[in-house]
Amino acid sequence: MTSLSPTLTTAFELIRRPSVTPEDAGCLDYLSQRLEKLGFTLYRLPFGEVDNLWARRGQQQPLFCFAGHTDVVPPGPQERWETDPFTPEIDSEGFLRGRGAADMKGSIAAFIEALEVFLTRHPHPQIDLALLLTSDEEGPAKNGTVKVVEWLEERNEKIDWCLVGEPSSTTQVGDVIKNGRRGSLGGRLIIKGKQGHVAYPHLARNPIHLAAPALTALTEEVWDQGNAFFPATSFQISNIHAGTGATNVVPGELEVLFNWRFSTELTAEAIQARTEAILKAHQLDYVIEWQLSGLPFLTAEGSLVAAAQTAIKQVTGRQTQLSTSGGTSDGRFIAPTGAQVVELGPVNATIHQVNERVAAADLEQLSEIYSGLLESLAASIEVSQANV
Amino acid sequence: MTSLSPTLTTAFELIRRPSVTPEDAGCLDYLSQRLEKLGFTLYRLPFGEVDNLWARRGQQQPLFCFAGHTDVVPPGPQERWETDPFTPEIDSEGFLRGRGAADMKGSIAAFIEALEVFLTRHPHPQIDLALLLTSDEEGPAKNGTVKVVEWLEERNEKIDWCLVGEPSSTTQVGDVIKNGRRGSLGGRLIIKGKQGHVAYPHLARNPIHLAAPALTALTEEVWDQGNAFFPATSFQISNIHAGTGATNVVPGELEVLFNWRFSTELTAEAIQARTEAILKAHQLDYVIEWQLSGLPFLTAEGSLVAAAQTAIKQVTGRQTQLSTSGGTSDGRFIAPTGAQVVELGPVNATIHQVNERVAAADLEQLSEIYSGLLESLAASIEVSQANV
Repeated sequence: MTSLSPTLTTAFELIRRPSVTPEDAGCLDYLSQRLEKLGFTLYRLPFGEVDNLWARRGQQQPLFCFAGHTDVVPPGPQERWETDPFTPEIDSEGFLRGRGAADMKGSIAAFIEALEVFLTRHPHPQIDLALLLTSDEEGPAKNGTVKVVEWLEERNEKIDWCLVGEPSSTTQVGDVIKNGRRGSLGGRLIIKGKQGHVAYPHLARNPIHLAAPALTALTEEVWDQGNAFFPATSFQISNIHAGTGATNVVPGELEVLFNWRFSTELTAEAIQARTEAILKAHQLDYVIEWQLSGLPFLTAEGSLVAAAQTAIKQVTGRQTQLSTSGGTSDGRFIAPTGAQVVELGPVNATIHQVNERVAAADLEQLSEIYSGLLESLAASIEVSQANV
Repeated sequence: MTSLSPTLTTAFELIRRPSVTPEDAGCLDYLSQRLEKLGFTLYRLPFGEVDNLWARRGQQQPLFCFAGHTDVVPPGPQERWETDPFTPEIDSEGFLRGRGAADMKGSIAAFIEALEVFLTRHPHPQIDLALLLTSDEEGPAKNGTVKVVEWLEERNEKIDWCLVGEPSSTTQVGDVIKNGRRGSLGGRLIIKGKQGHVAYPHLARNPIHLAAPALTALTEEVWDQGNAFFPATSFQISNIHAGTGATNVVPGELEVLFNWRFSTELTAEAIQARTEAILKAHQLDYVIEWQLSGLPFLTAEGSLVAAAQTAIKQVTGRQTQLSTSGGTSDGRFIAPTGAQVVELGPVNATIHQVNERVAAADLEQLSEIYSGLLESLAASIEVSQANV
């Protein structure tokens, strides 16, 4: 076996720890050791069954934070993996294989190496550095980043720039970064009717019949047009259920689950009000439970986006594309504190799938992008301080 | 214990045999003994796990047949019964209690007594008599009456008048008789979409969204206006299902089960064609499976309806009401052979429920109505023969 680069060595250490949510499996212990040697002060923050780490270097502002997660989704059917999901290896095509290679142990490894490089060059940098790591990103996300952010707010620790290491790239490293995310609002609707026999429909009230026009109206509603950064808000029904299988019974209730991914043009309250207006216009007897999973956020411009664009261009020659599409990430918890937030990580083609993999060369480039980004941010501070 | 009337004695014998579909539990053996003594020739016709009995007395036409079933629906939660469901008793209010008291062991007992009375008066009647009894009416109804009717057709045995002993009465014996039934057509519709993630709706096709306008159209369709004998055809969705519970997945398929109860104004083929036209107008990718449970039938007038009306009037003083409402019955299998079919039985208020019961006095009246009906039919033959 040829010797591994520092980034790959770290990635191997992380992948061989089977940290399926909410298990951390020793990943944070390992990273703590590495960060302590780099001069970080460590705060282990367990909430419930979830282990979290806040590591900070420096006591002045501005503060740059790398946010990420050590947990991974379950490997799924073992027999469909060409290699063991928790035994990392570099395949003949130069890909690092294993669960978490792309989402997101590879990013963490690349950032650790970026820190080594950056701190070697700048032992006393103009910016503070921090890592916010959780083992609860792929699960319910209730005892991870959201709780650490609350803890930071109580301590008045404020993040200025936050890089989330999520795999943002689509086909080549750095081709896409996420500078915002749509909000996510869920609803569980129960439409009440009256159970009965299909042969005596006048004695029943069929909740499916009552609901159909309202559901049509909800699917046809134009919620907004989006804006320069966001696509139009989308509404999707994920589940609909009524009836017990009996073919001669009019069911008494209909259950409908739905979800909006919404832009910064709308608020959750506005969506809720418009939805209830549609349901009431159809004179439905209903109960609705709302679940707000995340508000939309946007880092439209600023030094973090600029530093990311510059670093990507320098390392890869690529003009990166800003995007706010896709699912939620822990960025939704950090952005509301006022931080600039960008997601930048490897290619996401195989995440959450069997045979997850990422090009080893991509992780080396990613590490260079991360250290270049730190250089760029530090330089911007020196420039601004020189200008004072 | 005071001595029971002949009708109640027979009803007790039947109720204490726990003949939950498809079990007969000896009911047909008991009835066979009774009918053999009355001069009936017996044909036991087992099909699959179902026991059936064809009993005929006389070899000339016209033929009157009493059609019924010895099976009962399950008693349901035993603890909610005030008496044991399979231990018949007369309660303090004069009600016969037990599973099948109303549906339809009481009717069978009343008819056996009516035969005793009628044949005592007319040892050589002008009409043939038959009973078609099955233990498969409350279940799938695949190996019961439908098979016996096929067997009769092969033998060229033709029923002229058929009295189905179903509990047709609503509050008083004989207040309603059914002289027809609506048809029943079922459909299982699968609407195909494309599975995906709610955050990427442009990559998915949501079958719930696609279906909602079509389902609205189906529920709003006016299928017909009914006619003098039938209410308007009704359409009911009994089941709708899509989604596995995951709130971030656009499901790939939607399943919808529905049922029409249709009048003689429509055919199953016409309903199918109009349904598919609606689905196609909404450009749906779908598969549909049809199940025709029964064609509508109607005995608009004739000697059987007249004899039933006359007998009810004589015994109870009531003007009976003709109806085609309610669920299906085995009459649907007999009517297509050309027989006049009428359903006439006790009050149906407690059928299929716990504490099923029927007024003992009602069964005595019902027996008198049955024997009066036989008298009336036999007299009509004598009159017509005298006129030859």
